[in-house]
Amino acid sequence: MASNSLGQIFRITTAGESHGPSMGVIIDGCPPGIQVETAFIQQELNRRRPGQSDITTQRNEPDNCSIVSGVYEGKTTGAPILILIQNKDQQSSDYDHIETSFRPSHADYTYFKKYGVRDHRGGGRSSARETANWVAAGAVAKLVLKTQGIQIHAGVTGVGALTTSIDPIDLDWAHTEQNSVRCPDPEMAIQMQSLIEEIRDKGDTVGGVITCVINGCPAGLGEPVFHKMHADLAKAMLTINASKGFEYGSGFKAASMRGSEHNDVWEKTDSGEKTRTNYSGGIQGGITNGMPIYFRVAFKPVSTLMTDQTSIDAEGNEITIAGKGRHDPCVVPRAVPIVEALAAIVLADHVLMGRVWG
Amino acid sequence: MASNSLGQIFRITTAGESHGPSMGVIIDGCPPGIQVETAFIQQELNRRRPGQSDITTQRNEPDNCSIVSGVYEGKTTGAPILILIQNKDQQSSDYDHIETSFRPSHADYTYFKKYGVRDHRGGGRSSARETANWVAAGAVAKLVLKTQGIQIHAGVTGVGALTTSIDPIDLDWAHTEQNSVRCPDPEMAIQMQSLIEEIRDKGDTVGGVITCVINGCPAGLGEPVFHKMHADLAKAMLTINASKGFEYGSGFKAASMRGSEHNDVWEKTDSGEKTRTNYSGGIQGGITNGMPIYFRVAFKPVSTLMTDQTSIDAEGNEITIAGKGRHDPCVVPRAVPIVEALAAIVLADHVLMGRVWG
Amino acid sequence: MASNSLGQIFRITTAGESHGPSMGVIIDGCPPGIQVETAFIQQELNRRRPGQSDITTQRNEPDNCSIVSGVYEGKTTGAPILILIQNKDQQSSDYDHIETSFRPSHADYTYFKKYGVRDHRGGGRSSARETANWVAAGAVAKLVLKTQGIQIHAGVTGVGALTTSIDPIDLDWAHTEQNSVRCPDPEMAIQMQSLIEEIRDKGDTVGGVITCVINGCPAGLGEPVFHKMHADLAKAMLTINASKGFEYGSGFKAASMRGSEHNDVWEKTDSGEKTRTNYSGGIQGGITNGMPIYFRVAFKPVSTLMTDQTSIDAEGNEITIAGKGRHDPCVVPRAVPIVEALAAIVLADHVLMGRVWG
Amino acid sequence: MASNSLGQIFRITTAGESHGPSMGVIIDGCPPGIQVETAFIQQELNRRRPGQSDITTQRNEPDNCSIVSGVYEGKTTGAPILILIQNKDQQSSDYDHIETSFRPSHADYTYFKKYGVRDHRGGGRSSARETANWVAAGAVAKLVLKTQGIQIHAGVTGVGALTTSIDPIDLDWAHTEQNSVRCPDPEMAIQMQSLIEEIRDKGDTVGGVITCVINGCPAGLGEPVFHKMHADLAKAMLTINASKGFEYGSGFKAASMRGSEHNDVWEKTDSGEKTRTNYSGGIQGGITNGMPIYFRVAFKPVSTLMTDQTSIDAEGNEITIAGKGRHDPCVVPRAVPIVEALAAIVLADHVLMGRVWG
Repeated sequence: MASNSLGQIFRITTAGESHGPSMGVIIDGCPPGIQVETAFIQQELNRRRPGQSDITTQRNEPDNCSIVSGVYEGKTTGAPILILIQNKDQQSSDYDHIETSFRPSHADYTYFKKYGVRDHRGGGRSSARETANWVAAGAVAKLVLKTQGIQIHAGVTGVGALTTSIDPIDLDWAHTEQNSVRCPDPEMAIQMQSLIEEIRDKGDTVGGVITCVINGCPAGLGEPVFHKMHADLAKAMLTINASKGFEYGSGFKAASMRGSEHNDVWEKTDSGEKTRTNYSGGIQGGITNGMPIYFRVAFKPVSTLMTDQTSIDAEGNEITIAGKGRHDPCVVPRAVPIVEALAAIVLADHVLMGRVWG
Repeated sequence: MASNSLGQIFRITTAGESHGPSMGVIIDGCPPGIQVETAFIQQELNRRRPGQSDITTQRNEPDNCSIVSGVYEGKTTGAPILILIQNKDQQSSDYDHIETSFRPSHADYTYFKKYGVRDHRGGGRSSARETANWVAAGAVAKLVLKTQGIQIHAGVTGVGALTTSIDPIDLDWAHTEQNSVRCPDPEMAIQMQSLIEEIRDKGDTVGGVITCVINGCPAGLGEPVFHKMHADLAKAMLTINASKGFEYGSGFKAASMRGSEHNDVWEKTDSGEKTRTNYSGGIQGGITNGMPIYFRVAFKPVSTLMTDQTSIDAEGNEITIAGKGRHDPCVVPRAVPIVEALAAIVLADHVLMGRVWG
Repeated sequence: MASNSLGQIFRITTAGESHGPSMGVIIDGCPPGIQVETAFIQQELNRRRPGQSDITTQRNEPDNCSIVSGVYEGKTTGAPILILIQNKDQQSSDYDHIETSFRPSHADYTYFKKYGVRDHRGGGRSSARETANWVAAGAVAKLVLKTQGIQIHAGVTGVGALTTSIDPIDLDWAHTEQNSVRCPDPEMAIQMQSLIEEIRDKGDTVGGVITCVINGCPAGLGEPVFHKMHADLAKAMLTINASKGFEYGSGFKAASMRGSEHNDVWEKTDSGEKTRTNYSGGIQGGITNGMPIYFRVAFKPVSTLMTDQTSIDAEGNEITIAGKGRHDPCVVPRAVPIVEALAAIVLADHVLMGRVWG
Repeated sequence: MASNSLGQIFRITTAGESHGPSMGVIIDGCPPGIQVETAFIQQELNRRRPGQSDITTQRNEPDNCSIVSGVYEGKTTGAPILILIQNKDQQSSDYDHIETSFRPSHADYTYFKKYGVRDHRGGGRSSARETANWVAAGAVAKLVLKTQGIQIHAGVTGVGALTTSIDPIDLDWAHTEQNSVRCPDPEMAIQMQSLIEEIRDKGDTVGGVITCVINGCPAGLGEPVFHKMHADLAKAMLTINASKGFEYGSGFKAASMRGSEHNDVWEKTDSGEKTRTNYSGGIQGGITNGMPIYFRVAFKPVSTLMTDQTSIDAEGNEITIAGKGRHDPCVVPRAVPIVEALAAIVLADHVLMGRVWG
């Protein structure tokens, strides 16, 4: 059934497989008068694209995008915005060896069970190439949020056992784009880079964690009871390929805390009401309280290895799958712009929802 | 804006505040011919209701429910099912002292900022009383799932620093309803009970973790890319009051794992295809693979304390909020049926979505 | 599947059968701060209720309504509003004779084919009793529209071959509630009343037409391309039991007109832009243009007759259905408040949609 | 707000303006395994395209389409289908003279009031060019329906005062594509052709009526109470540019009929249950009854004339708009494939909705 749309008021609908001519996304509900330049969308896509550094897949996709509709003389018109992103470096033959087999921990088996047919080249709709659509739409969402003074920053805060000890709120986002790992803690970034290289050289892969902080968000966004801000964020984040968990504010740590230490006490300051601590992560009862929003997303290690693995084929026969293809040793550096994009789409949707009642 | 509906095909719409005459939920899209007895819905509500044990709030709500429509001669007719749950033991005066103040880490502040008006008695729609609607609807969803052989079990696996060491798949759910904590590990249950009592006696509260396992789910459920099974589960779980995080399968632990250890290798067995390990948590690419689904939900400590706290009022003046009211020292024992109910609603929705192309 | 909700932002979800304890409607998305009195809702329900005059069914339903949630101290809070309407004068035995037969031009046959089960008493969800839910929700919608200066008036303009010759825009709505037919043309009302009585006395029924005019609607409401104002109105009107057609502005007459006579020429007046004629019916390209909106809805004659009819039973055997029950000889007088209610719900939804980019 | 999607399970989302590089439509929810050839989509587009005969606009748009995604080796995969339709013969300068003026009975004024900006070239999203998206998506829907044995035929049955006297059910659809008017009554087609030519030569335009008949539809499709089959059809038809009214079965004529003549009496035949008459138009209580569905759609005369008209500009000054551009003297011949396409989309959606409950 129809399930390729996200959002209520600001809604994206996506299409495309990695081995067709292009990906495509329609952004419906973008307000008129927003300044949109292709260059900015392209810049965001470049942060996601393969082959951007020595710790990402060496596949080479320029990810050229074009705006087909909805923008006139550099501004949105209120009409739906169709963006196309070209597919280019498709090596479909890379996938011949899995045409009849199910790779471990991939979606090969489940897609086959669900749809009965299989476009095995690149995984069809289960391919992470779909995330290019999200990044393009997220770029437009960021431009909507910019008019409201809302900024979204994400960065890698964990790779394998390595984790930054800096508090999310204190992270200096200026560092993120200065290293290949996209870690906002520059010292940790060096260690993470070494770890990823070491694992890559063994033909193995490793998981990681991305932290996202949203600043400038006014109090009052979020729609109880079934469009709570953090619930919509959780859904969006768990939609990202390879993500395994979501927590906001104190997160899983809250489970071991006492109410007397966890409660965020309100106080009046010169710049308005604030809470002394922010275990709530900027959201209370599903509605933003004006404090910074922050959340963490866990990612599993990439399933495609450069070493041989055993599995089964469609008839259930045991087979060996050779390590092949061009894949990332660690997914999180390239997932940073994806986390930001989906967060931006959710926030833009909530900003517009918040306007309904003035 | 309208935001009180959950689900696409099997969809619930809820209404009611804790201090009105009753709560109400409309279950729309329930297939005809499902056997539904009020007694089963009541039994599920009893698991959630206050005053059920010495470690829950002493408020006394019998939570009597009645089916108003959609069921004829004990079976669903395909028409929408309206269920009412009476409110009874309302001590609105308990809330007089917070009429003009914002309790720390509650939704008082954010609801006021959003809606401009405040039904301060019991928190209005932010009250956990809303979860009675979900449990009633979840009971109907469970009856739909029963016809498909799908079972859902949840239990408390963490309270404060106490955590069971039993693997989710190995938990013996028969134990869950035999202790007040609803912990499926009976030895750990005793320790948890002591901890909660100790904390309650100090007027403090503590957080916890609930684990949920879904058995009997066939391969092929889940609708990429924006209705992935685990993303819909995440959204539902984060909708529960006081929840702070969600992880499925390997969860946050996956972030520190290698691909070579994390991959779930397929093998053929006498009872069909299986994976040797189940780090995927029964879901790959957002679609179920026939293995057990399991996930964990983190809950923060209840914000209402029996001790005094400082805060501000609507004018921003610093005030002291006295410890008062009747609240749970730990939310997780009563949240177990809520987790099950929302999981059942999500699963029933996906079972029906799966039929569209069946 | 779930199909008992109408609207995007201001959305109603309904439940209830004529022979259960009550009907119920949840109004989700009503802005906070709207003054809502049960008395006004009751007054609207009284306009729809059976037994109100000698040309309507003699069934006696007081249609007592109660507001269960979402209103606090006389004002909406932004929470969903649940309204219950009691069922009372149920003579289920009236329907015993059709338990196994399909009445001509009723929904008996199609409901049985679709749902497999049949709550034959009063037609289940196909009963016009459902419209009580719409009228209650429409009353709330009218109160939302009142704050925007938008007024909705409907009246009977055709019964059988009798049709008023007054232009919709020139109708004097003060007359509508002064006659049993609800015809805003008092002279025609007398003829219509005679015709309905004559037909009723023969045990027969007759169809009719309702015209609706909406004044005070600002330019700019309507959401192309799939939520055009008139398309949403058409859908709502065709949802009403027994309705067979919808036309707005020039309607079917436009098919035989020339562009040179049909075009509405813009001119500037002291009170803003106006069109000289209004064949557009206040809507151009799916968006309101500030002129009065008007449309007509056709209703078929009621299918239940007081004379015997032949038909078949579930096994396909030919049977005779005796004329029985208590039904209206002409549906349009009681359908007037229903047309207004659904128009109000559509307009309230569009007013709120219009704010998103406001 | 987002409003460019139609359908629940089989859902289309559209984008594009007449003066951008292309139109684009995403068809989401199309079942896997449906045979789809570009040639068939192109053939349907050719029926809609301008310049196809001497009584349509002389604009020349080849309307070349391409399938970007969702089809693999000639069959749908269950993934969303993106179709692009090239724009080519854009004479944007044709619209220079209306850059600051509002054409009578166009959407110029209302779009400007709503969006604040204006892409005046070709009317932006209000352009009938959008209907190319619908026809492309409708072609795919027809292929879905073909697997179910459902056929949809539409034809022109009225132009100006000329109307065929043949009963909808008796129309011979083989004639439709054999004349430029697309009238299934060949004798009437000749008269209609003459009338349109005569009106065209005067620089004027004329309205018309399209009748649509759906055969092979099983009983049981339609989802009360807010997705009744005919209500969804009405909404879709009223979405078509220039449409002013919709009626199904007996339609507006029902208003003047008696119940005793209007009731469709059931009888058992060798080929199953049938009704002797079909005033119900194949739908009872919003659900199909297995009899042919038929409905009529009224279209107003095209607003763009080849003669001068007065109007106002954005400042409210009175101006004269010269007759210019290339437009159809009568919209209905080219609207026939559009009516069929939207009917097919609605039916495909309902076929899939009908599967939810098996």
